[in-house]
Amino acid sequence: MAPGAVAMASVAAATTWRLVLLLLLSIAGLGAADGPRPPNILLLLMDDMGWGDLGVNGEPSRETPNLDRMAAEGTIFPNFYSANPLCSPSRAALLTGRLPIRSGFYTTNGRARNAYTPQEIVGGIPDDELLLPELLKGAGYVSKIVGKWHLGHRPQFHPLKHGFDEWFGSPNCHFGPYDNRARPNIPVYRDWEMVGRYYEEFPIDVKTGEANLTQVYLQEALDFIKRQQAAQHPFFLYWAIDATHAPVYASRPFLGTSQRGRYGDAVREIDDSVGKILGLLQNLRIAENTFVFFTSDNGAALISAPKQGGSNGPFLCGKQTTFEGGVREPAIAWWPGRIPAGQVSHQLGSVMDLFTTGLSLAGLAPPSDRAIDGLDLLPAVLRGRLTDRPIFYYRGDTLMAVTLGQYKAHFWTWTNSWEEFRQGVDFCPGQNVSGVTTHTQEEHTKLPLIFHLGRDPGERYPLSFASTEYLDVLRGITPVVQQHQKALVPGQPQLNVCNQAVMTPKGALPLEHCTDLHACAKPSALATPWTEGGPAFCPQAPAQPCLHCVRPVGTKIRCGVL
Amino acid sequence: MAPGAVAMASVAAATTWRLVLLLLLSIAGLGAADGPRPPNILLLLMDDMGWGDLGVNGEPSRETPNLDRMAAEGTIFPNFYSANPLCSPSRAALLTGRLPIRSGFYTTNGRARNAYTPQEIVGGIPDDELLLPELLKGAGYVSKIVGKWHLGHRPQFHPLKHGFDEWFGSPNCHFGPYDNRARPNIPVYRDWEMVGRYYEEFPIDVKTGEANLTQVYLQEALDFIKRQQAAQHPFFLYWAIDATHAPVYASRPFLGTSQRGRYGDAVREIDDSVGKILGLLQNLRIAENTFVFFTSDNGAALISAPKQGGSNGPFLCGKQTTFEGGVREPAIAWWPGRIPAGQVSHQLGSVMDLFTTGLSLAGLAPPSDRAIDGLDLLPAVLRGRLTDRPIFYYRGDTLMAVTLGQYKAHFWTWTNSWEEFRQGVDFCPGQNVSGVTTHTQEEHTKLPLIFHLGRDPGERYPLSFASTEYLDVLRGITPVVQQHQKALVPGQPQLNVCNQAVMTPKGALPLEHCTDLHACAKPSALATPWTEGGPAFCPQAPAQPCLHCVRPVGTKIRCGVL
Repeated sequence: MAPGAVAMASVAAATTWRLVLLLLLSIAGLGAADGPRPPNILLLLMDDMGWGDLGVNGEPSRETPNLDRMAAEGTIFPNFYSANPLCSPSRAALLTGRLPIRSGFYTTNGRARNAYTPQEIVGGIPDDELLLPELLKGAGYVSKIVGKWHLGHRPQFHPLKHGFDEWFGSPNCHFGPYDNRARPNIPVYRDWEMVGRYYEEFPIDVKTGEANLTQVYLQEALDFIKRQQAAQHPFFLYWAIDATHAPVYASRPFLGTSQRGRYGDAVREIDDSVGKILGLLQNLRIAENTFVFFTSDNGAALISAPKQGGSNGPFLCGKQTTFEGGVREPAIAWWPGRIPAGQVSHQLGSVMDLFTTGLSLAGLAPPSDRAIDGLDLLPAVLRGRLTDRPIFYYRGDTLMAVTLGQYKAHFWTWTNSWEEFRQGVDFCPGQNVSGVTTHTQEEHTKLPLIFHLGRDPGERYPLSFASTEYLDVLRGITPVVQQHQKALVPGQPQLNVCNQAVMTPKGALPLEHCTDLHACAKPSALATPWTEGGPAFCPQAPAQPCLHCVRPVGTKIRCGVL
Repeated sequence: MAPGAVAMASVAAATTWRLVLLLLLSIAGLGAADGPRPPNILLLLMDDMGWGDLGVNGEPSRETPNLDRMAAEGTIFPNFYSANPLCSPSRAALLTGRLPIRSGFYTTNGRARNAYTPQEIVGGIPDDELLLPELLKGAGYVSKIVGKWHLGHRPQFHPLKHGFDEWFGSPNCHFGPYDNRARPNIPVYRDWEMVGRYYEEFPIDVKTGEANLTQVYLQEALDFIKRQQAAQHPFFLYWAIDATHAPVYASRPFLGTSQRGRYGDAVREIDDSVGKILGLLQNLRIAENTFVFFTSDNGAALISAPKQGGSNGPFLCGKQTTFEGGVREPAIAWWPGRIPAGQVSHQLGSVMDLFTTGLSLAGLAPPSDRAIDGLDLLPAVLRGRLTDRPIFYYRGDTLMAVTLGQYKAHFWTWTNSWEEFRQGVDFCPGQNVSGVTTHTQEEHTKLPLIFHLGRDPGERYPLSFASTEYLDVLRGITPVVQQHQKALVPGQPQLNVCNQAVMTPKGALPLEHCTDLHACAKPSALATPWTEGGPAFCPQAPAQPCLHCVRPVGTKIRCGVL
């Protein structure tokens, strides 16, 4: 069977499975279709925003009055984690409730290697993964993603094929501008249709930092909320905006208004937008029927600091690492009238919990045919109940560390390679903990480095191997890790770069097969339209091969053959 | 003239001066004796507590609900500084409104050397310095210090000789336990009388961390407030407690209750006490007539971390350094009905401002015959008005750095010596900024290292010397520093250790002259009572030489000759 046929068969199987699941949910009465309308769900997911970027988490310039008020009116989770120190895997985990190692959002290109979905990647969210919006359909939700998808950019990975009803945003990071010859700019979609590209129809001035995108994304959110409220639909809005990911941007009214430069300007605009979104919920009188959660995809990108990176507060290192600065996230739950004001929950939380919590809000049970790592946070936020659970930290295929209770054990330490470091790439600028922030991959699987995160949140003082405390903790952690590893079935790796690693059992695919829809604007592709993507993105002409990248200068963006 | 005679003459001169000053204030009508009763002033001064120790400043364990509420009901100052990275000079500056270099609270024992008042020090607060409580008498205030004085322990430095009407606490740090032979434990006083010693009548269990002292200090505060309210006196209470200074302690109900170990337990007890104090003000209905300010004397002592030291949040290094972690302090102003709730003031503030603000609250003008570094904070807290002002950072006799606006320029960098560092003393554990956290004293007076504290509060990225921004900032800072240095008249250094440095123009005093009242319990002193202190501490027997340290085991503490 050709690979394409395998994919088709697997799509069909997954579709069948999904129908069966929804049927089962319906039979079980969990769909809540006939019960009272379940609450709306609004996830505000930031991009590379650090734990320390919020005033309520100690950012000295205190530029987040709306988020601080959101925290004061809701519950803050100081111990809330990403499922990965990088964007794509973290987002895959959020929407599936599963560690990236399970869903395939990792690479085997190298040990402990972080990976995401740049244009060169052909992988994406596997069709047999069940995403939150897909399952929420069983309870009548209408779902929209605003902003960054990042779970693959080939047709089969389109968010509207994975449960979302609407999309306004892009499949990838807003890196650029590119030359549009060897590499086109990243496209922006409204639902199935490409409506432009970053730096073109959606300008970002990398010199001044000016871009109107947060305002566009805000309007998308406000509009969606109003429409769903008018239609009396329960909704799931996934607001995955990206202004704090380098190149950082803000719109003109916010530029130059913060104490932190452009990064702070971006934060101020986001904070203002959050205020407007929460304000709309209150004006529409649906705040008491809307569960809102604010968090970020991974730690602040210190490699972009100080001008384009955020703050990880008192924590060690940043994005790309499994130290606290790479994985601990700002997190606020808000639901007036249901969540009491001014709470702090010390529940160890994860972005994966948003999957399970979302289902719980909708009266749905998580799928029982697969491992789910997310926890339902409702007992914590509504009743102050704490649940013991481990938090596992992976880089790529490697279990780097685990937290259990107050203790974190590192089985591997690594920041980045000496080679990168010597070239000026530093994941831990200004920080240096001997034997901990290593530039070689150091194994500690037999005797992990253990930190007490309460008295040492900055991971500076590993417990003495000889201490009773160390031995006690190790005894508690070891069986939890063994059980996790024994039960783990890694997914097919999706994030391998094909010219560098095995993509098929037969070996690496040639580079041209890795070129994707967004890369096809190179001259050769324009001359010989690349049709591998099929009609998926092209509802207007479903029988035609789709050429999203075909946009001769001066013509309307269109979907069709040359 | 013998040194004693000099001291007497200078005391007489200062007393005359003070009378003249109070007369002048009275003539000027600033004494407000006949006007409406001025507000009470309550300064809550912590010991070695770090900026990052408050939940509202991002401590992840969030163990300060009362302080966080105080902030929510008042104004928080994220950019508030100590006048020195060490205790005694910081406290001298707070009470005099003057930099330690002016009041003499520094040493010439070595360049950039930090110094305080251990038992070996004969210096203390010079008699011609005017302290806040002394001046507040002009407006009818009754003043009490609870806790650590730290401005000298010889009779002439007694707090009741410098304006306070009451004292419960100790002249020094609660280091110990000592052997009471070569070195006695630190005494605790009620007003003029020594009522016991740490580790003896006031036990501190250094093994378990148990001590009842914060409760004792709390009761002293509550009692004083109630008495002054009953007597209808405006009061100044200086609550200078020390539970967060190593050896860190808490009372039994708080031990083991925090997520941070003993340090967190101490913070929790302090937070609880602050809640009780503010609660009393509210119950007595005097909250609206009481200006309360919470801050700390210097940055968290990272050399005592992680078990006995606090957090400096995102800032660089800790106590003893002039990096942000050494000098930036938590700061909250609270005055219900006057200070609007939930404000953030970006006024650059200093503990010295509490002197000037205190006077302003009392309707008094600061002394005009000397340089005063403190700023009146009332325009900032009451009317949101910001005042441009520099913040100078000294270590001992050396101007290390200055902040102006958002920029901080380091003229010298130094953490601690290689020798200390190699012995395991590290003022910046886990932090290492190349060329910044130096272990040798590095001069940058011609081309200071400049940081933008808004986008780089952690002082990790010095501006490029070649940038326009650097040159602009340098042009702004240079004249401010020149003006400061030109006008500066350093005081007579008070903190020289006499066996190591010049104490008189003729050279170092022999060691025995440095032995002070608290050190006189060594066997030789017990045998030959040391009378140099004179009758100052001994009101019951003013004609007798006083022997505070004479406390034969099993007898009542008393003041008198053997």
